[in-house]
Amino acid sequence: MNTVLETLRSTQDLRMADLFAILQIPSISSHPQHADDMKACADAFAKLLQRAGMTATMVHTTPGHPIVTGSWLHAPGRPTLLIYGHYDVQPVDPLELWESAPFSPCIHHERIFARGAADDKGQILMHIHAVEAILKTHGCLPLNVIFLIEGEEEISSPNLPPFLIAEKTRLQADLAIVSDTSMWAEGIPAITASLRGLVALEVKVTGPDRDLHSGSFGGAVANPVEILARMLATLKDDQGSIAIPEFYADVQNPSLSRRQDVANIPFDETAYCRAIGIQSSWGEAGFSILERIWLRPTIEINGMWGGYSGPGVKTVLPAQAFAKLSMRLVCNQTPEATAALVANHLRMVAPPGVTVEINKLPGGGLPWHLSLDLPAVGAARQALADSFGIQPVIIGEGASIPIVADFERILSLKTLLVGFCLPDAKPHSPNENLHLPSFHTGTESLVRMMYYLGYS
Amino acid sequence: MNTVLETLRSTQDLRMADLFAILQIPSISSHPQHADDMKACADAFAKLLQRAGMTATMVHTTPGHPIVTGSWLHAPGRPTLLIYGHYDVQPVDPLELWESAPFSPCIHHERIFARGAADDKGQILMHIHAVEAILKTHGCLPLNVIFLIEGEEEISSPNLPPFLIAEKTRLQADLAIVSDTSMWAEGIPAITASLRGLVALEVKVTGPDRDLHSGSFGGAVANPVEILARMLATLKDDQGSIAIPEFYADVQNPSLSRRQDVANIPFDETAYCRAIGIQSSWGEAGFSILERIWLRPTIEINGMWGGYSGPGVKTVLPAQAFAKLSMRLVCNQTPEATAALVANHLRMVAPPGVTVEINKLPGGGLPWHLSLDLPAVGAARQALADSFGIQPVIIGEGASIPIVADFERILSLKTLLVGFCLPDAKPHSPNENLHLPSFHTGTESLVRMMYYLGYS
Repeated sequence: MNTVLETLRSTQDLRMADLFAILQIPSISSHPQHADDMKACADAFAKLLQRAGMTATMVHTTPGHPIVTGSWLHAPGRPTLLIYGHYDVQPVDPLELWESAPFSPCIHHERIFARGAADDKGQILMHIHAVEAILKTHGCLPLNVIFLIEGEEEISSPNLPPFLIAEKTRLQADLAIVSDTSMWAEGIPAITASLRGLVALEVKVTGPDRDLHSGSFGGAVANPVEILARMLATLKDDQGSIAIPEFYADVQNPSLSRRQDVANIPFDETAYCRAIGIQSSWGEAGFSILERIWLRPTIEINGMWGGYSGPGVKTVLPAQAFAKLSMRLVCNQTPEATAALVANHLRMVAPPGVTVEINKLPGGGLPWHLSLDLPAVGAARQALADSFGIQPVIIGEGASIPIVADFERILSLKTLLVGFCLPDAKPHSPNENLHLPSFHTGTESLVRMMYYLGYS
Repeated sequence: MNTVLETLRSTQDLRMADLFAILQIPSISSHPQHADDMKACADAFAKLLQRAGMTATMVHTTPGHPIVTGSWLHAPGRPTLLIYGHYDVQPVDPLELWESAPFSPCIHHERIFARGAADDKGQILMHIHAVEAILKTHGCLPLNVIFLIEGEEEISSPNLPPFLIAEKTRLQADLAIVSDTSMWAEGIPAITASLRGLVALEVKVTGPDRDLHSGSFGGAVANPVEILARMLATLKDDQGSIAIPEFYADVQNPSLSRRQDVANIPFDETAYCRAIGIQSSWGEAGFSILERIWLRPTIEINGMWGGYSGPGVKTVLPAQAFAKLSMRLVCNQTPEATAALVANHLRMVAPPGVTVEINKLPGGGLPWHLSLDLPAVGAARQALADSFGIQPVIIGEGASIPIVADFERILSLKTLLVGFCLPDAKPHSPNENLHLPSFHTGTESLVRMMYYLGYS
């Protein structure tokens, strides 16, 4: 294995060139005008897989953007690892907040800045490089690998579940690994042991059949914006708990030992608040910030609008008001049941005189958590500890990666979430970046992980 | 007087031609590209005043749009009537909802459809025609008149109060009359005895220094849209009363006799709701619809916005949320004190962890009411009853006409509000119209009113 790590180090220039090359492709999956870039990016990853020594590499067309697969299955009797990643990226607006052009990668303070550096092109490249270094050094891998790299993660992976179902046999594996999350801090690796699920609703409140003059009618007609504000104000109590009856009925309370582990993670609340420009945190009473984000459900209003928003005064009593809400779920909540509970509650609290329409928005997914008893967790812990010189922190993630639940549901696969970007990598925001020392040490840890998983 | 009414009837074609001509000028005061049209409209009204026999007609330049005055002051010992109107109109959007072009007047079902037909060009023309008919018939008027026609009513009359102050001596009068309101119903005239005042605020709630991922942060960080909704939900109680401490301290409760009079006005609540597409009304418990609109204050949310409002889901925890509120005031509330009460309340109920900024928006004005004991009210009642064959209804108006309070404050003038458009005249909306039989009978009633006021 040390020879492999030597190979890695000696090919660092070539590997940086790979990183620059793939980050220059504007693979924005949500913009139809980038369809050709999506194709080019899929091809680029297919070439990298071939160069790395995958013996069966394919670019699969889908109704959307292509899916790239590549496998090396020449270790009979050894486990098979499904390595998932995505080559599509988020849009780049607001462009004016970028300090360098989003598709002109640029190194500054040991970080490479570019859209997709962290999420997820840079991280999937680490796996390709790890496999390539082993194959270049020894001609064979300590386990079988299948790469699965999609181009629609940022648009909710509409074509991935059908692909998993269609290719179920060829995708048979013993474990999935995904690097699309963060380290705990610079120098401190992490394994992500839970993800929250997601379900989103749009609420529309209609009052009069047109905007009315707020002077001529104000006081006698229910104002849809006011009514919607009053409805939304009933979602939580003053202690930050969700006040919808039965909302917590399906919520699995975190175990005492998990709460103890989370409490032991060094966490600087002041620094946390400073980093996002707030003076104090706010949330469900009785739980710490990390518990609120990792282990507790929430309802967030993602947007609300109605009436006049231009300059000055417009004395209007608006005809309609709208809100978008999303619920983050923990085990054992389901998107369907939670959406129904919230929608019923909102309908119940609406006064007569307005019409309330509630629609479930597309997307969403189940919550997920990893059993820490899994042998693969031990292998990953060891590989991370050996490479970074410190035990990884077992973290949770408040956001959702629906594909992880899909792996479990469709392929019966457990997933290991091991990510290498730093907490301030700014995925989805201007100045997304990847910390290069973590990129290099992380790639080494993936080499070790393959050995430990292969021989475990 | 009967000869004058004959003159009116015999000049009906000419007077309709005047109406068509002035309604063809797109005098939209808020759109800078219509500056020339504003000038043309002011000149057109000056010409009409000259033709009517005003002996001193002037177009006064202002920092904004011109003000037109014209007077006939040759009835010594008789009272002087200040006739106020405005030649500017609201914008016409949404244009696609107009059934005929807004500046191509068109007669349909005894109504003339055009922007400004009701508000206010058509109504000010009635006064000009009444005066002209008397002067053409008898060569003199039963009282002195001063016309004051401004071009900035729809943009809050920024240059009128300074003009009133500067021209105070030349504008000295005994009574002001304004026709910019409605009749009670077709065939039933009305005198408007009260107006609500107005003051507006904009509220901005800031949480984190940028939009955050609602999965990664949701549950731990106060969501400004949610906080703003919760703040706004505290403005009223479940009975529709304003729940801000001391809000009603300055509110003069309506007298028992005024409440009795209002209760005696025939009012069809079902038809009212049907006309605006609602199933039931909503408002302060213990007051009727007319009382809520005419005699009670309200707080209306004119607009609210924050976060994502596009298609589908965006899992954002917004950095900011905004609302525009306006308060309608009744005697003896003041814009300043009410704005301070509401702003202080909102700041008080905001939780720590967010920043609340509240700004008073420009415009606004004092509430106003007319004493029904005024002799001029008797003269107006009689003139309306004689012309329409039915006693006028004494109504209130929930909207604000700040100039009326300015007349009282600056010129020490009482104002008579007698309007002739129908309740469905749709001022400020597509398909604004003026009912022509009301236009003609109303002009007759203004002739009578001048005689009754002149000899009272």
